[in-house]
Amino acid sequence: MLFLAQMDVTIPHGIDPDELAKLKEAEKQRAQEIQRSGKWPHLWRVAGRYANVSVFDVDSVDELHELLSSLPMFPFLDVTVTPLSRHPSALA
Amino acid sequence: MLFLAQMDVTIPHGIDPDELAKLKEAEKQRAQEIQRSGKWPHLWRVAGRYANVSVFDVDSVDELHELLSSLPMFPFLDVTVTPLSRHPSALA
Amino acid sequence: MLFLAQMDVTIPHGIDPDELAKLKEAEKQRAQEIQRSGKWPHLWRVAGRYANVSVFDVDSVDELHELLSSLPMFPFLDVTVTPLSRHPSALA
Amino acid sequence: MLFLAQMDVTIPHGIDPDELAKLKEAEKQRAQEIQRSGKWPHLWRVAGRYANVSVFDVDSVDELHELLSSLPMFPFLDVTVTPLSRHPSALA
Amino acid sequence: MLFLAQMDVTIPHGIDPDELAKLKEAEKQRAQEIQRSGKWPHLWRVAGRYANVSVFDVDSVDELHELLSSLPMFPFLDVTVTPLSRHPSALA
Amino acid sequence: MLFLAQMDVTIPHGIDPDELAKLKEAEKQRAQEIQRSGKWPHLWRVAGRYANVSVFDVDSVDELHELLSSLPMFPFLDVTVTPLSRHPSALA
Amino acid sequence: MLFLAQMDVTIPHGIDPDELAKLKEAEKQRAQEIQRSGKWPHLWRVAGRYANVSVFDVDSVDELHELLSSLPMFPFLDVTVTPLSRHPSALA
Amino acid sequence: MLFLAQMDVTIPHGIDPDELAKLKEAEKQRAQEIQRSGKWPHLWRVAGRYANVSVFDVDSVDELHELLSSLPMFPFLDVTVTPLSRHPSALA
Amino acid sequence: MLFLAQMDVTIPHGIDPDELAKLKEAEKQRAQEIQRSGKWPHLWRVAGRYANVSVFDVDSVDELHELLSSLPMFPFLDVTVTPLSRHPSALA
Amino acid sequence: MLFLAQMDVTIPHGIDPDELAKLKEAEKQRAQEIQRSGKWPHLWRVAGRYANVSVFDVDSVDELHELLSSLPMFPFLDVTVTPLSRHPSALA
Repeated sequence: MLFLAQMDVTIPHGIDPDELAKLKEAEKQRAQEIQRSGKWPHLWRVAGRYANVSVFDVDSVDELHELLSSLPMFPFLDVTVTPLSRHPSALA
Repeated sequence: MLFLAQMDVTIPHGIDPDELAKLKEAEKQRAQEIQRSGKWPHLWRVAGRYANVSVFDVDSVDELHELLSSLPMFPFLDVTVTPLSRHPSALA
Repeated sequence: MLFLAQMDVTIPHGIDPDELAKLKEAEKQRAQEIQRSGKWPHLWRVAGRYANVSVFDVDSVDELHELLSSLPMFPFLDVTVTPLSRHPSALA
Repeated sequence: MLFLAQMDVTIPHGIDPDELAKLKEAEKQRAQEIQRSGKWPHLWRVAGRYANVSVFDVDSVDELHELLSSLPMFPFLDVTVTPLSRHPSALA
Repeated sequence: MLFLAQMDVTIPHGIDPDELAKLKEAEKQRAQEIQRSGKWPHLWRVAGRYANVSVFDVDSVDELHELLSSLPMFPFLDVTVTPLSRHPSALA
Repeated sequence: MLFLAQMDVTIPHGIDPDELAKLKEAEKQRAQEIQRSGKWPHLWRVAGRYANVSVFDVDSVDELHELLSSLPMFPFLDVTVTPLSRHPSALA
Repeated sequence: MLFLAQMDVTIPHGIDPDELAKLKEAEKQRAQEIQRSGKWPHLWRVAGRYANVSVFDVDSVDELHELLSSLPMFPFLDVTVTPLSRHPSALA
Repeated sequence: MLFLAQMDVTIPHGIDPDELAKLKEAEKQRAQEIQRSGKWPHLWRVAGRYANVSVFDVDSVDELHELLSSLPMFPFLDVTVTPLSRHPSALA
Repeated sequence: MLFLAQMDVTIPHGIDPDELAKLKEAEKQRAQEIQRSGKWPHLWRVAGRYANVSVFDVDSVDELHELLSSLPMFPFLDVTVTPLSRHPSALA
Repeated sequence: MLFLAQMDVTIPHGIDPDELAKLKEAEKQRAQEIQRSGKWPHLWRVAGRYANVSVFDVDSVDELHELLSSLPMFPFLDVTVTPLSRHPSALA
């Protein structure tokens, strides 16, 4: 089951640079771990923005929320989720 | 080069049903033709809406506009295009 | 799996009154049929508006879209879907 | 009398972690207390967001406001309330 | 129990002038009937707009929706309802 | 002359609790003083929000601005003003 | 007493050209009549739009609404009114 | 003096195809005439939309409005104008 | 050449009160200086808001930007500029 | 390949003035370096705002993102990117 997730990142001004660097590294590790599991098949950067467009492939909405909220930067993310279904004109 | 295209369809009330049926069939043919060319790798329906989420893979912005405006239902589409670039955390 | 669906209805001006009456009756029949199946557990009217707030309980996003697009008034609906997951503070 | 309440939570950056942990625990206790009273029949998490969708069943608008403003995290909530009435197509 | 109702009126272009005049007269009659019942204590025109700001005093949300949807011009109204509760600084 | 004023309150995080308590008490005193003058005939709480809906009855726009900006919490208020005129269907 | 009025004009497609020409001429006559009365001291075109920015000088909100709704094109206007008061830094 | 103009085109459904074809041809002629005068130095299509991004170089706001409203398709355009000034970091 | 400028002021919480008082005094001096030059013919307060509606009369867009950015409170202003042209119905 | 980039700058209150001055100087240097490369052909200030309108000429979306995110003030920018294609009425 596929969901589009559009994520905007807002880093609070004044955050400790070391803390931020650690967060970003942890975020990268967790993002790649989820991708390797096959549950995050697409991850793109939005040009010009600290934002991404993602597609998740999960068994349930609960699993989707668990994955998203497991991201170390979740407190700084504004996520919009759009449920996707099969399009009648899509090739198999 | 990838672009996210989010398309909302609005059919004017009072359109002739035969004309509409032909348009929809032509739209499906053209959409599948573009998909077979490899330039429209993802096409999903937005659940509950007459709308789709698409990803196009093109050589230029001009080519993207030519593809989108070649759709028979283009006059009824509201398309938002988001340019996508490689994400530093994306797996190869 | 639960989804919130918020539906706004817009009836085009000039629609034939008989056609509209038939549509509304068909809509009611279909809505009750889906409710009886257990897949549409909540359906409320938004006070003061030709709109509803609904909760659907489905096995997949595809099933959700099939149910919504099977409504006779689907062409006149503007539907916003929000995927719902279990809340950590919710009782049983 | 039913009201839909859509709540978005925004935690200010720099809040003391212990204070936040206490607030969250107090919030959970209070939320469950209200649920046990029967006045908060539905509480769901919005997938991917620090937000919830709730339905309250109260005797008056005053009671609704008292319940919502009794939540320990009320200062951090952005709440949108929609009054719900019986839908003519809803099953009894 | 008080509710603020903000109503915007949109008359479709091309409506028959006689039909419109009858609608407006029926609207006025019904509006005054509800006001006389005591359930519509405030009705003001928004300066410069075909719109009003109203306060309703009802026993339930169902009653509010019945009153609003009984207005002859309801199909042309866009109504936003805000539930009002007692303000702690309000004089008795 | 009547004006609708819709006020949203945003308290900055980290404000000194004593300062805030004093502000709230001063706000209440000033709000009641204006109400007693007859110039603030309606003051309601918006259910679920730190916000109010008010009606002011003043001799001029200048007087309206003086009253609103005399509120101790004015720096924390977002106020939207709507000028109200007599509605042709309103009872005398 | 001054009010800013921002007016956007939307002419319905399919209106009879003669009817429209008469409306525009009547609008111009009425607009100039109000200007000569001194109650419409400023009237500017918004560059690139069928819209204007106006300032009215009236004795009451009722008078403002009467003037605006007396415009022959009022049914095609979307008017936003902003009440203006004296600015403490304004000269004389 | 430079102005950014962002134009969205909305063609009313049901317009006579011959009338539309003439309008589009006249629009093209007039657009090229203005470009040749040097007053419309940039004209780009927005990818995926019936819209353009333009830069005008004019002597006054009046001239800008005259140019825009001289376009045969002006009644179908929604134009947003942004005045541009020299940027301190811009090269020569 | 006239431009409408709508300015909203946001004072950051925690600013030093003396610094703020000086800023406000400097703002007043500069605002009156520009007014005396004849380039800022209208300056009004928006009732109920820390905001103003202004009209500037300048020779170029560059001059407009220089004037606005010379205001001591410019960093706290959110300014929306609308270019104004002569209205065909305006009296001479 | 051309892209419109509209950039709004928000400087956090309380930033160290020396740090800000250095950032602005570095931003200017980098902006001019990119302009000299021919990849940033247009850069204009939006009148009255800390914002710019830019046009970039790049070989790919990846290159566009690299250029934008290389700006020293990127963390304070809100950038909206619009892909531009050739307009059929544009002169060669």
